[in-house]
Amino acid sequence: MIPKVHDGLEMAMARNESGENLEKWKKRMHVFGERLKRFPCLAWKTTWKVGYDDPRRVIHAFKVGLSLTLVSLLFLLEPLFKGIGENAIWAVMTVVVVFEFTAGATLCKGMNRGLGTLLAGLLSFLLDYVANESGQILQAVFIAFAVFIIGSATTYMRFIPYIKKSYDYGVAIFLLTFNLLTVSSYRVDNVVKMARDRFYTIAIGCAICLFMSLLVFPNWSGEDLRHSTAFKLEGLAKSIEACVGEYFNGEIEVSGDIKSCDDSIYKGYKAVLDSKSTDETLALHGSWEPRHFRYCHKFPCQQYVKVGTVLRQFGYTVVALHGCLRTEIQTPRSVRVLFKDPCIRLAAEVSKVLIELANSIKSRRHCSPEILSDNLREALQDLNTAIKSQPRLFLGSNDIQANNMLATIASSHGKSSLSSVKTDSSALLDWKTKSVSAEQTMEAEQLQERKALRSQMSKIVITSLEFSEALPFAAFVSLLVETVAKLDLIIDEVEELGRLACFKEYRHGDEFSVRCEKPRVDVMDNHFPSHGGD
Amino acid sequence: MIPKVHDGLEMAMARNESGENLEKWKKRMHVFGERLKRFPCLAWKTTWKVGYDDPRRVIHAFKVGLSLTLVSLLFLLEPLFKGIGENAIWAVMTVVVVFEFTAGATLCKGMNRGLGTLLAGLLSFLLDYVANESGQILQAVFIAFAVFIIGSATTYMRFIPYIKKSYDYGVAIFLLTFNLLTVSSYRVDNVVKMARDRFYTIAIGCAICLFMSLLVFPNWSGEDLRHSTAFKLEGLAKSIEACVGEYFNGEIEVSGDIKSCDDSIYKGYKAVLDSKSTDETLALHGSWEPRHFRYCHKFPCQQYVKVGTVLRQFGYTVVALHGCLRTEIQTPRSVRVLFKDPCIRLAAEVSKVLIELANSIKSRRHCSPEILSDNLREALQDLNTAIKSQPRLFLGSNDIQANNMLATIASSHGKSSLSSVKTDSSALLDWKTKSVSAEQTMEAEQLQERKALRSQMSKIVITSLEFSEALPFAAFVSLLVETVAKLDLIIDEVEELGRLACFKEYRHGDEFSVRCEKPRVDVMDNHFPSHGGD
Repeated sequence: MIPKVHDGLEMAMARNESGENLEKWKKRMHVFGERLKRFPCLAWKTTWKVGYDDPRRVIHAFKVGLSLTLVSLLFLLEPLFKGIGENAIWAVMTVVVVFEFTAGATLCKGMNRGLGTLLAGLLSFLLDYVANESGQILQAVFIAFAVFIIGSATTYMRFIPYIKKSYDYGVAIFLLTFNLLTVSSYRVDNVVKMARDRFYTIAIGCAICLFMSLLVFPNWSGEDLRHSTAFKLEGLAKSIEACVGEYFNGEIEVSGDIKSCDDSIYKGYKAVLDSKSTDETLALHGSWEPRHFRYCHKFPCQQYVKVGTVLRQFGYTVVALHGCLRTEIQTPRSVRVLFKDPCIRLAAEVSKVLIELANSIKSRRHCSPEILSDNLREALQDLNTAIKSQPRLFLGSNDIQANNMLATIASSHGKSSLSSVKTDSSALLDWKTKSVSAEQTMEAEQLQERKALRSQMSKIVITSLEFSEALPFAAFVSLLVETVAKLDLIIDEVEELGRLACFKEYRHGDEFSVRCEKPRVDVMDNHFPSHGGD
Repeated sequence: MIPKVHDGLEMAMARNESGENLEKWKKRMHVFGERLKRFPCLAWKTTWKVGYDDPRRVIHAFKVGLSLTLVSLLFLLEPLFKGIGENAIWAVMTVVVVFEFTAGATLCKGMNRGLGTLLAGLLSFLLDYVANESGQILQAVFIAFAVFIIGSATTYMRFIPYIKKSYDYGVAIFLLTFNLLTVSSYRVDNVVKMARDRFYTIAIGCAICLFMSLLVFPNWSGEDLRHSTAFKLEGLAKSIEACVGEYFNGEIEVSGDIKSCDDSIYKGYKAVLDSKSTDETLALHGSWEPRHFRYCHKFPCQQYVKVGTVLRQFGYTVVALHGCLRTEIQTPRSVRVLFKDPCIRLAAEVSKVLIELANSIKSRRHCSPEILSDNLREALQDLNTAIKSQPRLFLGSNDIQANNMLATIASSHGKSSLSSVKTDSSALLDWKTKSVSAEQTMEAEQLQERKALRSQMSKIVITSLEFSEALPFAAFVSLLVETVAKLDLIIDEVEELGRLACFKEYRHGDEFSVRCEKPRVDVMDNHFPSHGGD
């Protein structure tokens, strides 16, 4: 009977399992169906947002469509096709590949493509001339050898930083064209005509691209760079104000929790931190644009990169300041409140200077000569006075005297926020108990448990050590003062930028220029990541 | 006579000027000649360095050369050419464009290219079928219209973040192929055969690329990502140790001067700060690689990105720490020396943990369960004790009592480093004088001068304010303690990484694994910046 029972059990289990599987599948199908239902809505929203964020994208899409239609006419119109023939395909290809979002990028790519094709044509013509002297088989060997050598050398060259930065596309096109021409020359008699035709059609494609991108609703990398620099300055200004405001007004929280306010601080400096490659690309493309002739003889692309660098330096300080909000050891509110006004005032002044710099870049004028106003100095002085008036605060909190004083201060402010001190002491006790018990059972238990304990350990260690609570506050103040010093570097670079970019002179009243508050999207989102070759 | 004299003068001046011009040109030519002389040497050095930094580049170059030669055989060998014909050109093009440095990147591009071509072929076949029903002129209009609509829609789609991130190349190829096929279909009768031939030749090109990149000395994005993560951890470890060492042992200097030591600190965290896009690209390519099957069923690319994020967070703290070295208000050496040992010990412990994490990632094993050792806790405790034992230090420095104490400490250490306090006071006086005189002459003089004054102002303001010199030191300590908290996040993410990537279990003795100290180059230098399209 046992086997039968067993069988029955197995069958029941199998039935059960298949039932479960069915359930699972039904559930999965249901989830999938739900997702499928939501998909059109989501897709539409995403599509709408892309255009809403930056309407120039819609215009760019239409421009590409129009260019492609224009270049297609080479095929579709009888007289044009008779003149150019099958090679018109290269013009179509050129338009798809070369047409970029900004005029500078298109120019850069167009020139690279033109130059690469020209050089490759010349080299392969030379090789063809040499190879033609020999017999059929020798010619094949010669061609294969040339392809190998030129292919290896060119690929290796692409790793050289200077070439990679500015001419990578040109080198890739050189390699491509050289291979196509050299290999074709073995089968086609008139390789010169072929090279010439290819060059002409590519020139037609480039001309269409340049016409559309330079003359029809053009987008300029240089302008994007300028706007993004101003945008970053504004972001930092908002960030530093929000950060100091949150430190004095927000809830005291322990690290790890992300709040809505954090968001607004983070958004402010996020764009700055990862801006290096964006800046460099925009500067490279901007340097190709002829538009700046209108303002000045030279586009100061390198100066924009420099401004970006000092902005990043400033941004790192803001990140550290933000870190003070979420540090493990928190300064009690009663202590913070003593320094609230001078700190908030200092942050407001720093932020005002940043906004003035942003406005100066936006409206292409020199920044106000009174940019480092007496207000900033006074705010610093106030902060200094406030700190000097409370010298005892920087005593260790375990000092009884200091603790008493803190209590006095707290009660005088009608608050009793010393709970964090108590928490710390109990945490230490807690940790000590855990530590002892951990030591005792160490050998008996798995390492696994110790790992779990470990993950809590450092937090408890830090909070329990009764470090002076003034320590993180001192860090906060010190970093705040540090931003003033960094601000100076930013002003220097922006003034140099104004000089190089021939900004117009500052006139009184300019500082009250209206701020257009519409947040710009990250300009880099408009730059196609791209992929080498033709 | 006067005009004559004038003439003579002018002539003399003109002669003089032309002489000067000649001089200038000669000088310029000389400089140019010098540069030309140095160029071959410089070019050779750069070329050599590129290969020396990462010998895989040389191998990659040869691989590309070999692949191109192989694909050229389609043209050069009679039997192959008969089978494929002119279309072999697409295979050559595919090899040039698709062959990337790592296997993952090649796979990603190859798949995108294949899929894009396939979809475009299907769509253009459909359109061709519809268009063929109508007359010649109507067909032309229909084609032009389709090119416009598809061109615009596809370009617009490329802005959608999800598509842009993973499938941008595929979409570009789709647009290219669609245009080529649709436009050609107007002149060529058998568009299906054309599409099929193109697809076959592209498949041949892709096959050669995949063979060479997967099986012949392959480079893996996943491995590069793993190594670069370990490298970044080591960099941070070195950076934090160098930074703390410099703070206590180096010369006290005012901001702006870059020293050789700064270099070693900066090098350590530089790679971390701008690593976001590198990490994401490597993770994207790594996710295409089949190699991880050997170790685990799934490559945890997203976890590497997360580790990169916490490393950047840690990096920002190190930057702030580095900032303390160059802040305007400097803590006197006599004060610093009191906390030297515990701080250096803490930094050494943090650095040890980072190195252990780096070793764990390098050798694909879980990290030691005792990674947060008691040493770290003890180091924290020591620092705490040191701070508590000197509570008066956190008094304002203008406090006479504190100043006296500082003097006592300084003399007891046999040093007289209180010069910075004096400097500060005299700086304040200096600044006050300047400020008053500036106010008096304000209206009479140009704004220009005020600007020059301004550039020095903030520095003087900050240094003269007699902020407590303990302030920046407190910031330094606080940031150092903060690194311990951040360290915890790093350990969490690295342990999660170990779990997801199926690292092998930790065995005792593993922590003494040999460190291979050869500094790796930035892996991103091997990734070609690239350019959209075919």
